Amino acid sequence: MNMNHDMIRNILAAVQRGELDVEQAAGRLQDKGYIDLGHTKFDMHRVTRNGFPEVIYAEGKTPEQVGDIFERLRGESNVLATRVSPEMAEYVLRRCPHVRHNALGRTLASTCEDITPKPGAVAIVTAGTSDLPVAEEARVTCEMFGTRARVFSDVGVAGIHRLFDRLEDIRRADVVIVVAGMEGALASVVGGLVSGPVVAVPTSVGYGAALSGFSALLCMLNSCASGVTVVNIDNGFGAACAACRICSLNK
Amino acid sequence: MNMNHDMIRNILAAVQRGELDVEQAAGRLQDKGYIDLGHTKFDMHRVTRNGFPEVIYAEGKTPEQVGDIFERLRGESNVLATRVSPEMAEYVLRRCPHVRHNALGRTLASTCEDITPKPGAVAIVTAGTSDLPVAEEARVTCEMFGTRARVFSDVGVAGIHRLFDRLEDIRRADVVIVVAGMEGALASVVGGLVSGPVVAVPTSVGYGAALSGFSALLCMLNSCASGVTVVNIDNGFGAACAACRICSLNK
Amino acid sequence: MNMNHDMIRNILAAVQRGELDVEQAAGRLQDKGYIDLGHTKFDMHRVTRNGFPEVIYAEGKTPEQVGDIFERLRGESNVLATRVSPEMAEYVLRRCPHVRHNALGRTLASTCEDITPKPGAVAIVTAGTSDLPVAEEARVTCEMFGTRARVFSDVGVAGIHRLFDRLEDIRRADVVIVVAGMEGALASVVGGLVSGPVVAVPTSVGYGAALSGFSALLCMLNSCASGVTVVNIDNGFGAACAACRICSLNK
Amino acid sequence: MNMNHDMIRNILAAVQRGELDVEQAAGRLQDKGYIDLGHTKFDMHRVTRNGFPEVIYAEGKTPEQVGDIFERLRGESNVLATRVSPEMAEYVLRRCPHVRHNALGRTLASTCEDITPKPGAVAIVTAGTSDLPVAEEARVTCEMFGTRARVFSDVGVAGIHRLFDRLEDIRRADVVIVVAGMEGALASVVGGLVSGPVVAVPTSVGYGAALSGFSALLCMLNSCASGVTVVNIDNGFGAACAACRICSLNK
Amino acid sequence: MNMNHDMIRNILAAVQRGELDVEQAAGRLQDKGYIDLGHTKFDMHRVTRNGFPEVIYAEGKTPEQVGDIFERLRGESNVLATRVSPEMAEYVLRRCPHVRHNALGRTLASTCEDITPKPGAVAIVTAGTSDLPVAEEARVTCEMFGTRARVFSDVGVAGIHRLFDRLEDIRRADVVIVVAGMEGALASVVGGLVSGPVVAVPTSVGYGAALSGFSALLCMLNSCASGVTVVNIDNGFGAACAACRICSLNK
Amino acid sequence: MNMNHDMIRNILAAVQRGELDVEQAAGRLQDKGYIDLGHTKFDMHRVTRNGFPEVIYAEGKTPEQVGDIFERLRGESNVLATRVSPEMAEYVLRRCPHVRHNALGRTLASTCEDITPKPGAVAIVTAGTSDLPVAEEARVTCEMFGTRARVFSDVGVAGIHRLFDRLEDIRRADVVIVVAGMEGALASVVGGLVSGPVVAVPTSVGYGAALSGFSALLCMLNSCASGVTVVNIDNGFGAACAACRICSLNK
Amino acid sequence: MNMNHDMIRNILAAVQRGELDVEQAAGRLQDKGYIDLGHTKFDMHRVTRNGFPEVIYAEGKTPEQVGDIFERLRGESNVLATRVSPEMAEYVLRRCPHVRHNALGRTLASTCEDITPKPGAVAIVTAGTSDLPVAEEARVTCEMFGTRARVFSDVGVAGIHRLFDRLEDIRRADVVIVVAGMEGALASVVGGLVSGPVVAVPTSVGYGAALSGFSALLCMLNSCASGVTVVNIDNGFGAACAACRICSLNK
Amino acid sequence: MNMNHDMIRNILAAVQRGELDVEQAAGRLQDKGYIDLGHTKFDMHRVTRNGFPEVIYAEGKTPEQVGDIFERLRGESNVLATRVSPEMAEYVLRRCPHVRHNALGRTLASTCEDITPKPGAVAIVTAGTSDLPVAEEARVTCEMFGTRARVFSDVGVAGIHRLFDRLEDIRRADVVIVVAGMEGALASVVGGLVSGPVVAVPTSVGYGAALSGFSALLCMLNSCASGVTVVNIDNGFGAACAACRICSLNK
Repeated sequence: MNMNHDMIRNILAAVQRGELDVEQAAGRLQDKGYIDLGHTKFDMHRVTRNGFPEVIYAEGKTPEQVGDIFERLRGESNVLATRVSPEMAEYVLRRCPHVRHNALGRTLASTCEDITPKPGAVAIVTAGTSDLPVAEEARVTCEMFGTRARVFSDVGVAGIHRLFDRLEDIRRADVVIVVAGMEGALASVVGGLVSGPVVAVPTSVGYGAALSGFSALLCMLNSCASGVTVVNIDNGFGAACAACRICSLNK
Repeated sequence: MNMNHDMIRNILAAVQRGELDVEQAAGRLQDKGYIDLGHTKFDMHRVTRNGFPEVIYAEGKTPEQVGDIFERLRGESNVLATRVSPEMAEYVLRRCPHVRHNALGRTLASTCEDITPKPGAVAIVTAGTSDLPVAEEARVTCEMFGTRARVFSDVGVAGIHRLFDRLEDIRRADVVIVVAGMEGALASVVGGLVSGPVVAVPTSVGYGAALSGFSALLCMLNSCASGVTVVNIDNGFGAACAACRICSLNK
Repeated sequence: MNMNHDMIRNILAAVQRGELDVEQAAGRLQDKGYIDLGHTKFDMHRVTRNGFPEVIYAEGKTPEQVGDIFERLRGESNVLATRVSPEMAEYVLRRCPHVRHNALGRTLASTCEDITPKPGAVAIVTAGTSDLPVAEEARVTCEMFGTRARVFSDVGVAGIHRLFDRLEDIRRADVVIVVAGMEGALASVVGGLVSGPVVAVPTSVGYGAALSGFSALLCMLNSCASGVTVVNIDNGFGAACAACRICSLNK
Repeated sequence: MNMNHDMIRNILAAVQRGELDVEQAAGRLQDKGYIDLGHTKFDMHRVTRNGFPEVIYAEGKTPEQVGDIFERLRGESNVLATRVSPEMAEYVLRRCPHVRHNALGRTLASTCEDITPKPGAVAIVTAGTSDLPVAEEARVTCEMFGTRARVFSDVGVAGIHRLFDRLEDIRRADVVIVVAGMEGALASVVGGLVSGPVVAVPTSVGYGAALSGFSALLCMLNSCASGVTVVNIDNGFGAACAACRICSLNK
Repeated sequence: MNMNHDMIRNILAAVQRGELDVEQAAGRLQDKGYIDLGHTKFDMHRVTRNGFPEVIYAEGKTPEQVGDIFERLRGESNVLATRVSPEMAEYVLRRCPHVRHNALGRTLASTCEDITPKPGAVAIVTAGTSDLPVAEEARVTCEMFGTRARVFSDVGVAGIHRLFDRLEDIRRADVVIVVAGMEGALASVVGGLVSGPVVAVPTSVGYGAALSGFSALLCMLNSCASGVTVVNIDNGFGAACAACRICSLNK
Repeated sequence: MNMNHDMIRNILAAVQRGELDVEQAAGRLQDKGYIDLGHTKFDMHRVTRNGFPEVIYAEGKTPEQVGDIFERLRGESNVLATRVSPEMAEYVLRRCPHVRHNALGRTLASTCEDITPKPGAVAIVTAGTSDLPVAEEARVTCEMFGTRARVFSDVGVAGIHRLFDRLEDIRRADVVIVVAGMEGALASVVGGLVSGPVVAVPTSVGYGAALSGFSALLCMLNSCASGVTVVNIDNGFGAACAACRICSLNK
Repeated sequence: MNMNHDMIRNILAAVQRGELDVEQAAGRLQDKGYIDLGHTKFDMHRVTRNGFPEVIYAEGKTPEQVGDIFERLRGESNVLATRVSPEMAEYVLRRCPHVRHNALGRTLASTCEDITPKPGAVAIVTAGTSDLPVAEEARVTCEMFGTRARVFSDVGVAGIHRLFDRLEDIRRADVVIVVAGMEGALASVVGGLVSGPVVAVPTSVGYGAALSGFSALLCMLNSCASGVTVVNIDNGFGAACAACRICSLNK
Repeated sequence: MNMNHDMIRNILAAVQRGELDVEQAAGRLQDKGYIDLGHTKFDMHRVTRNGFPEVIYAEGKTPEQVGDIFERLRGESNVLATRVSPEMAEYVLRRCPHVRHNALGRTLASTCEDITPKPGAVAIVTAGTSDLPVAEEARVTCEMFGTRARVFSDVGVAGIHRLFDRLEDIRRADVVIVVAGMEGALASVVGGLVSGPVVAVPTSVGYGAALSGFSALLCMLNSCASGVTVVNIDNGFGAACAACRICSLNK
């Protein structure tokens, strides 16, 4: 595997801007496909292999480790971190002021160059207000990957006229992401009303028999609307990745 | 507790018809509140205590035991048995030709007097064709308890226009029973569209993550439509009991 | 769907009291069936569709979002919020002093007009003292919906004479809500002793094999007393909704 | 560990009756504490260590293996086998006509000497008719161990007057075994009404959310009546063992 | 909603071929959006709403019901039935000789006109030989929907060189369906090696801790390869629907 | 039901000591079988019905409620509260200095008269040091009920010689309570080595697949040593109740 | 990767014996690392990569597929198939008379050359007679891989003296495989008594709370004896593989 | 059982160093096989029985108890404690300054003599950075037991080239420990690529359907790579014990 052009160009530009010296740049151009930070091997070839850069799953990492990655990749690669706690965000922002924090979506992001817009559009539909953080994680991820995305919130099935009001707009999207907790019925209803791919994200909204999102997950896996696919509970990021993978077919 | 008038009248009428002799009738009038068949104590006072006669849960009983009960209560009480296997039905019908079998709903029933119609009407709504056996068990139970019931089948949410077509009729019922397997989303959608009580029955229709009805059960317990209540998986009988209890308030 | 008379009258009265100006009122009278607060689409037609106003499920919402709703609907609609944390309650009360907090039942409520009493009466029976918060949530909900409700606490089956002492009173209610944790056996016992509808609420009281309320939930779903229906764990609100839906049949 | 007197006496008596020759008897008197049948090491000292002989758990053994054990121990030890399928019973009876089969309780038993009655009495109470096989397994086990036992069937909580009718008799027992499926509530009610030890046996009677007996099991483990202990689902044998262990204290 | 041109054309052509008389055709042209067979409302508009015709889920239906549908829709619509038992297949083939049976994939299919090939190609990859029935169900479904699909079987991760051998070909597809039981690890490995959308189908292959497919399901939901989406256990049909929805974007 | 002599004597003695005035005492002597504190109906007859006084389950109650009970029953009844948090203990001790706190066993207790020693002895055996809090809860409960109990700690099966060292002493007890977390194997080993009743208490000690005590619970329910009975996870109190019920047979 | 010498030698020998013609042999020598039978890619390099040949997991394969593999690999490779049903065994034996069937262990095996004995010895210890089929599967697997193995059956913890009798012999093995169902306690006890590696195999022996082997599985995973590792339920084959991998270190 | 030479030598050396007086030393030489600290019986013979000293499982113990053990065994035995909270570490370090804390691996350790290196080498491979604490626990344990171990971190299957880069080195180890959360697929991939024993440790890394490590656990138990064995979730210690038991065979 070879480095792709963007990566090489980014390293050279970083030298030009004085952010890397010649030795460091040389080291990086001797490409092993990942950057080795000791604790982490950041996969630089993922963009070549499956079209999207590696993203940091922040849970279970220390603030220091996440800070290291943002610092190290500055000026070389766009970076996104998901499931960032407020404390971690605060630490990283203090250390790397170029990073942007999205508190609702619990993400950190830094961009070293403009993101080229890709074709395709994603509609992110939520059952209730409490599903917004997951929807926002999905929206930010699409944005980082260059795909247009729009959130339609609080259109759950208990008041189904709210959904019908927005249906025209939702149908215009190439892919629909449905974000719903509790019984997750919205995925089946939307799946029966649109013709494009539907990616369902169960959320941990609810209590008791909601089983921290498992009821919604099971519901969505059993959807009577054929062609609905499902990702992990609260995994707005994964749904967005799937949606972006789908949109990039659409050339 | 005393015997109620219907019971006493039934015993006397059976004497008159020669179906009971004087000794037997005397024994029965010394009322202990149940009829003791050795293996089974058939609760004769349940109708007084909670408005509906005891019903035989046939699963786990032998054909002989169920046959005993139908034979013993002949001419004295209306009797309903649920979850009857084809083999048991065949045995009981051979022994008690007065009993009626409903193969789809898996019930046996015998009536010793006309069932007095009660006020109220029940709509039984199913998501798919495969949910019909459970719906039929519910319908037969309502009928045995004197409550009008009508089945609206195959109106699941994957083709939601089928539901809207029948909505007027469904709304006319006092109580709606929703019978659905797989993801069970129909309960939430119906619960959001009608104003009366909704009793949801999850069914074991589906496979894999349907978990033999548990996905639908969990889905219904988490319904975002407030006021939906739930009974056990495949329990059409229980849903009908609840519906009939509700309808009898409506005087 | 049209707005109902109460809603229109409330908006006009708010203009009269100077709480809304003409522009705002006009906007609201152009009715889309819900009020759009950005994060939330508050369903104003639910009262028309299923007889009871939408209620705020506060868990997973921010104090600010809940405060927005109370502020926005002031003078226009009665509002109830459930599962309110102490911190959220404190915030909302500071911002909206017209709101009333019930700490035991974890609710916030505001009324813009007197609640018209509806027919019917609900008995709320608890197994133990620790089940009281859920019972209280049910009681407050009934009250907001205009239905009379009375709590009978600590009559669990381990000392069954306590239940028999109150049975007369309990039987007088149209609907009985049974609130019980641990093994939840009270629902079956009550279901066998009364003739009206019984709605069972499992609670998360207990530990270990109580499985955060799942043992009680399973127990109640398997009730040998026919006609007991069940709602989600700790869902006093949902049980009350079901009870009120049932009582409104009783005209 | 030494052989106990009963064992030695039994071996000698078998020699006397010509059922064992001197060689075989000698081998058996060189006691290793178990009889080695190749596939099975039948624990002969268990009666010394914990008061009751080893019993054959027939499930998962072949009819031949079970037949070997009955044949080998004939005239030497009382033998009980539980969870015997009809096919296995037929095979063993053909080979060992001295063995007795209890079809309802699914046991095989042979006795080589009269069973000495032990003090104490056990009441076995069942919720429904379908729980009888488990109750019968418990009754047969008690009988084989010399302890008096009596079954009180079909006194479940949905018609609680049936239980109160038998309460006097039940209270007279030293230990009460409660056998119940579905929601298993009977254990708590009985546990609250008697002062002696209560051993609860959940049964797999029920369907759907009965979870093959797990609902009853969980219910019983959470019993609000203190001092109820529980054995495995359908384990009438184990409950009887526990009851007999308890009764033998009572000297 | 209006009928689409294909449907109308099909009805008219059936009249021309003498398969429908004028009355029947007229009835069908008065379109309610579904065909009502009493037990089943076959959704004819699904093709308009979400691009693919309704498919019969045969499990839980009687052979007669499935036969009715094939007979009724003959010459009017392409029909696919999934999860067909051998007995049902035999019955339907006897009654409707125009129907084709795929024994491995457990499907029945009939076509009334040539299927127009759609753009896009699907690779169906299986971990082991035992996963083939599910893969075949997916392949047949793609074929019925006009989408090209090819199966790459037995390339599981325990011998990962088998996968690398086929990787070139797999990467050429627009969508990859990964079918795997046991631990389901293949989905993550493939998801890390291709850039297009990956739909994972867990299968019930395995035993013990395979939990009838739940281990593979959980594994796939947790895939560390971002953008893998999942459908129900053994749901080859659903995966194919999703893949076809995705391919139709690709114009 | 009548009050028992102890209760009446206690009330009179409290009058004599000036702790109750005549009015209060009169009220209490008009016995309803429980003391009604509004939130709680303290069951005073339980001692008559099943031999042991009611005990306060403190979890889910407020410190105030528990304080009320100790205050109200002072001088009238011995009182035990279990599962008491440190905060609750602090509050109650401040308000009722006569109450004794056991921090390890998480209990509060007050005695108004000397506890009469009962016959029988209980051995409480723990697998590890981390099981001690549950063992201590059991020990304190036995003590409050007048039954002798002794703890044998840290004799788990990974070093089985530690158990054999104590076996003589353990065998001397009438009942053995086995307290074990993780895999709970100790119950089977002990059950195979003693002849008296064995009550097993699974504990929540362990992590991961210990499933908060469920692994130990399942292990114990499946014990191959016949006659082992089981109580809820961490339920030292319940095991002690069962042991005391058993010991009181032993007269 | 290159073919190893054994494989090449086997192919040439098969040519010599006339079992393969030159064309076939040439095809096989152009080695892709697996043999492609259409439905199956039989991994021929596994022996090089991880020391043991691939083994056929027969469940979910058709008798024809398994027969194909035995036929195709005849004279070229030793072959073992596990979890073979009686029907499949019958079919394969008819077609390939050189194959040997082990009915108890449910295996089929064929050898084309003598198996070279490897160093090391394995003790396979079972808790009860019902665990023998799994133990036998393990024993046959060891034998096919050239490792000595011996079964010690029915030494479960309920009669722990049976284990101590065999301990000397068991300790002599390099690796101990413990096969146990129900509560699986034997693994912990053995793990505490031997110093070598212990591989635990839970079996599905038991009922109710045995959860088809999950109780034993959980028990073994929580073993307080450090260094016990676990394989899937009933997976005697996997345990043997692990044991053989371990023994081959021992050179 | 006798004390082993190391233990005796250690006690004498401690007397020589003045850390123990003669009385204490005498007491310790009267060996019961464990040291009795009241709350804990520290098993001193475990090293004789199964080759490795007992290790303190700190969770559920108080800091005081753990401090007691380190203090008591000082100069007499090497001691390792696992799952140590930061608070406990702080307390113990203050009291016993000779103890070393590993914060990442959550261990405390003290050595009274040099650890003799044992033969064999262990490779510890992690899927991601978040799995490092568990890997570190394993590494420290190996080190305390004298076995060489090396960590290869962050080589998960989503970027499989990272693993191939390190494969040479990994293959050189005698035993491979694979530490992975989420879907745990790395165990199967590694198991297919190496020929030595593989011990898999699932970790609780992940969220939602990761089920706190159960998905990885199930995945690993179902590994299609034969011969992979599994330990409890997050149990780095147990995996290291197993690896060391295996390595000690290798003499």
